[in-house]
Amino acid sequence: MSEFEFINWIRKQTSPADRVLLGPGDDTAALFWPKDSVSLWTTDMLLEGSCFLLAEAGAHRVGRKSIAVNLSDIAAMAGKPIAALVSVALPKSGGRVLGEELYRGMREMADQFSMPIVGGDTSAWSGALAISVTILGEATGSGPVKRSGAKVNDWIMVTGPLGGSIYGHHLDFTPRVAEAQRLHQCVDLHAMIDISDGLSADLWHICEESNVGAVLFAENIPINDVLKEKVEQQFWIEHALRDGEDFELLFTVSPDDGAQLLRDQPIPGITLYHIGECVEEQQLFLRQDGQVLPINPTGYVHYLN
Amino acid sequence: MSEFEFINWIRKQTSPADRVLLGPGDDTAALFWPKDSVSLWTTDMLLEGSCFLLAEAGAHRVGRKSIAVNLSDIAAMAGKPIAALVSVALPKSGGRVLGEELYRGMREMADQFSMPIVGGDTSAWSGALAISVTILGEATGSGPVKRSGAKVNDWIMVTGPLGGSIYGHHLDFTPRVAEAQRLHQCVDLHAMIDISDGLSADLWHICEESNVGAVLFAENIPINDVLKEKVEQQFWIEHALRDGEDFELLFTVSPDDGAQLLRDQPIPGITLYHIGECVEEQQLFLRQDGQVLPINPTGYVHYLN
Repeated sequence: MSEFEFINWIRKQTSPADRVLLGPGDDTAALFWPKDSVSLWTTDMLLEGSCFLLAEAGAHRVGRKSIAVNLSDIAAMAGKPIAALVSVALPKSGGRVLGEELYRGMREMADQFSMPIVGGDTSAWSGALAISVTILGEATGSGPVKRSGAKVNDWIMVTGPLGGSIYGHHLDFTPRVAEAQRLHQCVDLHAMIDISDGLSADLWHICEESNVGAVLFAENIPINDVLKEKVEQQFWIEHALRDGEDFELLFTVSPDDGAQLLRDQPIPGITLYHIGECVEEQQLFLRQDGQVLPINPTGYVHYLN
Repeated sequence: MSEFEFINWIRKQTSPADRVLLGPGDDTAALFWPKDSVSLWTTDMLLEGSCFLLAEAGAHRVGRKSIAVNLSDIAAMAGKPIAALVSVALPKSGGRVLGEELYRGMREMADQFSMPIVGGDTSAWSGALAISVTILGEATGSGPVKRSGAKVNDWIMVTGPLGGSIYGHHLDFTPRVAEAQRLHQCVDLHAMIDISDGLSADLWHICEESNVGAVLFAENIPINDVLKEKVEQQFWIEHALRDGEDFELLFTVSPDDGAQLLRDQPIPGITLYHIGECVEEQQLFLRQDGQVLPINPTGYVHYLN
C-alpha cells in the first residue's frame, strides 16, 4: 500500500467537523477561528523503545497514549482541545497494519474528546516507530493557566493518586481535560502543570517559573493502589515523587480557595488532595515524620550527550 | 546536558514576537488568534536515511529543510506562516551538538520568514534522527487555495524550473511563500500545490481532487540548469516529471488569467511558465513532438508493507 492509499483510507474514516474547513488530503488543514481567542499549541513525540515497548503495549494503546499525552498538556493550561495533527514514521515491514491500528487507537482517544484528527504525515523508514502528535486548543475562562503564577503560601494540590504508572496507568490514563476546565471555573488557579516528569520535577518547574519554593507533606500525598500492592510501604513516597507519567494535574491556589476545594470536592469522580505549600526559599522540601528536609527535584529526565 | 538545559538554551535564543503570548517553556505555547480567521496547519517529518543523509547534508541544512518543507505547504495554500513547533528525536550519542546545530538551521530559515519557533519536544533515543515540524499559518486574501478547484481548460503553470533537485536544490530551496501570496493577489488561483512528490504525481493530486485530467506540454516544461549539466537531454523530461522536491508551485488559472500572468510576469525574481492545460478525461497526458500520449502519474511514493 502506498502512502496515498493510506491517506485515502484515513480520509474515509474522517467525518466533517465543526470549524474544520479542510481535513486530511490537501497541503494543509484549515480551521475556522470564530472569535478573538488564544490558541494553545503543543506537541509530544513518542518513541519506540524509549517511551513504550510496542510488543508489550500494542499499537492500539500506543496510539491512544500519543493523543492522551498531548491532551494532558492542553488540560494543564485549562484549555479546550480543538484538533490534532499526527506524524508517524513507520517501520518498513508491517507498517500498514501497524499504521491502521495506531490510527484506531488515536481516534478512540480523540473521539472521546470530540476532537477531529485533521491531517498529518506518514512515512516508512528503516528505523523504529516514531509518533509525533500536535494538538491545537483554545484557552477557556480567564485565559491559559501558566506555570509561572504560584505565590508564597499558596496551597499545592493534586487531582489524584501518584506513583507506579509503569504498571499500566501510563498507557491507560484519561487526560484531565474536563477536570481542568471545571477547576478553572471554580477558583483562581495560580499555576498548573500535568505530572509527566514526576511530582518533584514538575513541582520544581512551577517553582522555577514562579520564583518560589515548596514544601510537600509526605503524609498527604495520595499513593496509587497498584503501587501499594506491588511495592513495600517504605518506598511509596519515593515512587510518588519520581515515577512520572501520572498525568494528574498539579496546581496552586490561595489558601482560601484551597480550603474551599478540599471541603467542596467539586469535581465529579475525583478527589482533590492538599499536598503542600509554596514557600519563599527557592528549594524543594519534604515534611515527613515531623522533619522538613530539602529534596532533589530530579524526576524523569532525557539526557543528551 | 539534560532535556531541561537544552530547553533553557532554546529559551535564551527566543525573542518576544507578535501574537505569541507564551513561547517555549510551559505546557503549551499560546498564540493570539484574531476573529473570523482561517488557520492553516501542516506537519512534515524528516527521517535520517530516508529523507536525508546526515553526514552528507549536515545538521544545519537539515534543520533549514525541516522548516522549509512545511513553509512550502503553507505557500501551497497562499498562506502566511505564523509560528512553528518542532519535535526532534536525537540519537543518544552526540545529541547535544546535533540538537544545537539543527536548531540554528531551523532558526535561520524561520527568521527569514519572520516566523517564531514557539515550542516543541526533544528526546534522546537509540534510533536515528527524526524531526517533526508543525507550522501554523493564516489564510490570506479570499482564503486558502485548495487542490480541488481546477476546471477544464484551465492553464497549468509553474513558478520555476524542475528536475534534478537531488543535486542540492532539495536542501537549499527557498519556499515560495511570498510568491504564492503575490499570485493570490494578482489572479483567481483555481488550484495550487507545491511540487514535493514530483510534477506528474502532484499534478495528479490536483486532477483527482478536481475531477479533471491534464495535458502537459513537454516543450514548455522548464528544466533545471544543473539537470542539463549532469544528465543527457533525452532524460530531462522524465526527471522533470518524476524527481520531486522541486518545491516550486504548480497552479491552475483561467486561460485569460494565465495569458495575463505569462505576459506581465508579475513576480519579481522568478519566471512563470505555462506547461499544460486541464482536460475533461481524467487522465494525465504528455504532448511531445506533436504526439499526445497518456503517462503514469507516479512520482516519489513511500510504500507501506
